[in-house]
Amino acid sequence: MISFLNDYNTIAASEVLSYINKYSTGKYCGYGQDELTNYAKELIRKEIKHDAEIFFISGGTMTNLMVIQSMLKSYEACISVLEGHINTLETGAIENTGRKILTVPSVNGKITVEAISEVLKNHHGFHMVIPKMVYISNATEAGTVYTKEELQELYRYCQEKGLYLFIDGARLGTALVASGATLEDIYLNSDVFYIGGTKNGAMFGEAVCFKNSSLCEGFLHSMKQHGALMAKGFNLGIQFIALFETDLFYQLAKKANDIASYLASELKKIKIDIKNDPEANQVFISITTNLRKVLEKNFLFTLMDEKDGLETIRLVTTYNSQFAEVDAFISAIKAFQQDIKKY
Amino acid sequence: MISFLNDYNTIAASEVLSYINKYSTGKYCGYGQDELTNYAKELIRKEIKHDAEIFFISGGTMTNLMVIQSMLKSYEACISVLEGHINTLETGAIENTGRKILTVPSVNGKITVEAISEVLKNHHGFHMVIPKMVYISNATEAGTVYTKEELQELYRYCQEKGLYLFIDGARLGTALVASGATLEDIYLNSDVFYIGGTKNGAMFGEAVCFKNSSLCEGFLHSMKQHGALMAKGFNLGIQFIALFETDLFYQLAKKANDIASYLASELKKIKIDIKNDPEANQVFISITTNLRKVLEKNFLFTLMDEKDGLETIRLVTTYNSQFAEVDAFISAIKAFQQDIKKY
Amino acid sequence: MISFLNDYNTIAASEVLSYINKYSTGKYCGYGQDELTNYAKELIRKEIKHDAEIFFISGGTMTNLMVIQSMLKSYEACISVLEGHINTLETGAIENTGRKILTVPSVNGKITVEAISEVLKNHHGFHMVIPKMVYISNATEAGTVYTKEELQELYRYCQEKGLYLFIDGARLGTALVASGATLEDIYLNSDVFYIGGTKNGAMFGEAVCFKNSSLCEGFLHSMKQHGALMAKGFNLGIQFIALFETDLFYQLAKKANDIASYLASELKKIKIDIKNDPEANQVFISITTNLRKVLEKNFLFTLMDEKDGLETIRLVTTYNSQFAEVDAFISAIKAFQQDIKKY
Amino acid sequence: MISFLNDYNTIAASEVLSYINKYSTGKYCGYGQDELTNYAKELIRKEIKHDAEIFFISGGTMTNLMVIQSMLKSYEACISVLEGHINTLETGAIENTGRKILTVPSVNGKITVEAISEVLKNHHGFHMVIPKMVYISNATEAGTVYTKEELQELYRYCQEKGLYLFIDGARLGTALVASGATLEDIYLNSDVFYIGGTKNGAMFGEAVCFKNSSLCEGFLHSMKQHGALMAKGFNLGIQFIALFETDLFYQLAKKANDIASYLASELKKIKIDIKNDPEANQVFISITTNLRKVLEKNFLFTLMDEKDGLETIRLVTTYNSQFAEVDAFISAIKAFQQDIKKY
Repeated sequence: MISFLNDYNTIAASEVLSYINKYSTGKYCGYGQDELTNYAKELIRKEIKHDAEIFFISGGTMTNLMVIQSMLKSYEACISVLEGHINTLETGAIENTGRKILTVPSVNGKITVEAISEVLKNHHGFHMVIPKMVYISNATEAGTVYTKEELQELYRYCQEKGLYLFIDGARLGTALVASGATLEDIYLNSDVFYIGGTKNGAMFGEAVCFKNSSLCEGFLHSMKQHGALMAKGFNLGIQFIALFETDLFYQLAKKANDIASYLASELKKIKIDIKNDPEANQVFISITTNLRKVLEKNFLFTLMDEKDGLETIRLVTTYNSQFAEVDAFISAIKAFQQDIKKY
Repeated sequence: MISFLNDYNTIAASEVLSYINKYSTGKYCGYGQDELTNYAKELIRKEIKHDAEIFFISGGTMTNLMVIQSMLKSYEACISVLEGHINTLETGAIENTGRKILTVPSVNGKITVEAISEVLKNHHGFHMVIPKMVYISNATEAGTVYTKEELQELYRYCQEKGLYLFIDGARLGTALVASGATLEDIYLNSDVFYIGGTKNGAMFGEAVCFKNSSLCEGFLHSMKQHGALMAKGFNLGIQFIALFETDLFYQLAKKANDIASYLASELKKIKIDIKNDPEANQVFISITTNLRKVLEKNFLFTLMDEKDGLETIRLVTTYNSQFAEVDAFISAIKAFQQDIKKY
Repeated sequence: MISFLNDYNTIAASEVLSYINKYSTGKYCGYGQDELTNYAKELIRKEIKHDAEIFFISGGTMTNLMVIQSMLKSYEACISVLEGHINTLETGAIENTGRKILTVPSVNGKITVEAISEVLKNHHGFHMVIPKMVYISNATEAGTVYTKEELQELYRYCQEKGLYLFIDGARLGTALVASGATLEDIYLNSDVFYIGGTKNGAMFGEAVCFKNSSLCEGFLHSMKQHGALMAKGFNLGIQFIALFETDLFYQLAKKANDIASYLASELKKIKIDIKNDPEANQVFISITTNLRKVLEKNFLFTLMDEKDGLETIRLVTTYNSQFAEVDAFISAIKAFQQDIKKY
Repeated sequence: MISFLNDYNTIAASEVLSYINKYSTGKYCGYGQDELTNYAKELIRKEIKHDAEIFFISGGTMTNLMVIQSMLKSYEACISVLEGHINTLETGAIENTGRKILTVPSVNGKITVEAISEVLKNHHGFHMVIPKMVYISNATEAGTVYTKEELQELYRYCQEKGLYLFIDGARLGTALVASGATLEDIYLNSDVFYIGGTKNGAMFGEAVCFKNSSLCEGFLHSMKQHGALMAKGFNLGIQFIALFETDLFYQLAKKANDIASYLASELKKIKIDIKNDPEANQVFISITTNLRKVLEKNFLFTLMDEKDGLETIRLVTTYNSQFAEVDAFISAIKAFQQDIKKY
């Protein structure tokens, strides 16, 4: 089977495994109080070019719930687009920490200032939660990417209104490569964001970066309390040393994006309907149920939804996807198209 | 000032106060383990005509959060219309107990089987919460009322799909009087509901009725844990003795509905735009900002929202509203209408 | 049956009911935003002689959980004596809000600086909760009362160590009458406390007093979120107008204390073993199981525990206890003592 | 520096790293739905000799909070010895999920049936939590180990009383090797337990084993909701394949125990006071502050507490501790002893 299922289907990029083997004979302090973790933080701060407060957490859902419950009071709420990962695919993790998500419609997967301002207008008084944070994913759940200018406008608005801006960067590498924005741009245009390792070649690990220490008071206590503090924290540090001691982080994301781009252009050539213009490593297409069933025999991908006889499927590329795999996929569609022409 | 603000602006109906005075010399057990509480439950069960498990709680938000957190596991969710009270005006009380609300659009304030089935279709797998309860308000937040047939259809669907049906009856009295449904109908067509006292003449108090004891295991423990168990529980019992030893509960609701009905018909005569056909004790009208400002000088009501220069305001009647108060309101509008004609 | 069971067995003191009747024809704003509530706050502030922030809540467990969860972060903890009400008789209400209680042994029901300092010494680092609040009950669960000097010493220590001091005043009236301390003393020697109405003649209601507004940010939102905000908040206000427009609050507490004092002295005369020297309205005695069974036929009281054949029972007096009821109790014991002498 | 600090100071045992490298070229399904995870479960079930339900979680605190919040209702509580890891060193993780811990004194770090029965006797009625689970650590926090007979007696009692028995097996390997009990014994004498990987040579990972599926309904949903479900779940599976495809799990534990045993016997020879008889890989000794300060120059260990001028320090051995490291430690003490004799 050829997989376009997701970007977390390998143990890790080989370069990352080399680092694990390299450090395998040392002894280190526990709970992220070690020199490898510190070195990883330094490497990231060098990229950010500012003195962010950094913590390493094993996965995205845990990171989202940690950041949101830690920054918001119980009666403060987080604004997200309807299809936001925290609202759809995290089994109510945010609500389980006691926080409400206020949802708004998106435009191409992105949040808009207009939608946020509508929420602010409709929330007042002690019978309602207080909107206090805007959550966005970059790259978005729709495969789109915020431009640097969009982020600047959004963050300016958030600051004006006293809202935190939190960027879920589970796929931040692909977003940066696609948009040309830098980690410094992300830092400057948010209050907190995270750099996804799990979906970009690491064994596991997300690096949460707070603008300053006043935004993460008690965060280590809270991590321990939520089971988010790994005893062997240095294993998380190693992932990010591997990604940022060289430009591996960007290289891996670029590989994923390049294949996705090739995939999209090949699909267009054969008249397959593509949703949004794929900017990062996710391609969403509309196909018939019959075609989907044929493709499932040799390819892994996700069926998102079905409407009026057409299905949306998601194709994800990753650093170790192959151009030949795309070719095989295109061939399979072509063969199907030939078949149905016969009738 | 004449108040159309809400239906909880008096200490209690005079009949209720008489009962309080009547029982004032006795001594009673604490925490609802007393004979007055038991007698109140008996009176309600007589109305329900079945052996419901009944608990008394001081207010609606507490009742909603108690029922939902108690019946659902942490990863199970409650479906509600967008404007559902639990979703808008309870400061995230449900989420604060760790439960997610899944929202759907309403038709005239009511939930539809179609909307629920869409939610069920889109929820599967362990990345998503499990829809397990449907929450409705009767009367609804839009002032409409479910017919007995609508409830039957809804409950049949819920049972087929393994969903609990929970009826928020903060204004159940007005709904029953308006629709002709009985408490037995409500009992038969839901798993749990509550009978609102606070908005129907009591000092405070809602009577939660579970279909059977398997649905409320540990509920007393949970009430105590959430601060929902009043030490002087007999004070709650007295409210419901007062409401149900005679037909006071229905009388008070009928008074509120009759005035609302009169208000609506008078408003129609003077061409004021009424939202939905008011069925219970809430009337929603669309007026200009100028008219609203004039009315505010002598009347209390709630401004719901504003769109394109027109405002929606809510007018609530209650058992002690007066026909003369409606007349004064109508006169004020007429005077305004005369004034603007002059220009 | 004669009741020494508790101090919340009547609807309310007759004076309180008079106030309810007096205000019964008015119309008031909801959710404590009304003039009666404001007037009640003024009356209390006059007693406190400082500008406390005051909120009314229906009962003690709700008040405890509201204050503790609101003032503490999730990883901060509350120190209490082992027998503290929050630790024993509130069904885990504090833990249900996510906060840990750190328990220490008491001396005569009171907390000591030594015990607190031991907790502080043993808590450090992010693997442990941060002790941040001291919770005491006054009167205590053992029926004892803190002197003004004890409170001063305790509060001085708390301030030195950065700990909040929270006084559960479910029985504060009896404590003030017993110790001669004033509400001003309580205010000056704590960060937050509450004045119990439920156990001192009110229908329900506790008045929480925060030293200043920085200690209760968002408290109204949090009350609504926890179901602690009564729609008819004015009913709470009326209770405290009744208690504080005159010196009724102190009168009722004095009655309860006087009877308890008489009860204790009579018990001593007949050689019944009394635990602690009763200072407020609770008397704890050690008796045999046989005696307890005899007394149960005509008296209500609480069996606390049993050890080595002797049982501790709790006798509570209240404003409407009668001296004659004490006499009857003493006579019953005497009769039992006569009976067993015969053998 | 020579480390007796803890048993999680290396990336992983070299054998475990070999397995990671071995599987590094494959592609696997996400979230533990892959063949490696399944294979790991099979290997463990083979050891258990019964059909346990198994889940892999990254660390111990997360596992404890997942199991306890999942098996207990909000008003049910967990009994633990005072020094239980969940009560002392997890920053209130259990309380943060809303569950109360009821603490009892231990005997040599172990819980007793007497202590549990005392808790049961004192808990009744809806004002108190319901004790529903017993939590023990094996090996205990005091370095002791439950014998098979002790576990049998304890579990028999728990079953009789309707209590779940949950065994925290963060150091289960060392406990099994020390006591001669098998994984089957552990399975047969508990409702749920976990096999610690993190402290026994794995990069991370604990294997939670439920007696049957009725005890873990919805556990995957709950894991996702708490951020406990790793995207690359197969990385957890690999750890346990490495530990259980051969007898590596037991070998590593035996190494740790053997060194600890040697350490203890050498310490006894030089008259150092040892707390409990060390049975697994933790040795607790009482020394003077002066000696501790001298040792700190070359050795890492944990200062547990201080009393009357004597300090308790914890020495932990692990699979890669060396006999020579013990010799160095003993020599350092001897040198100190010589020095002080001179005066």
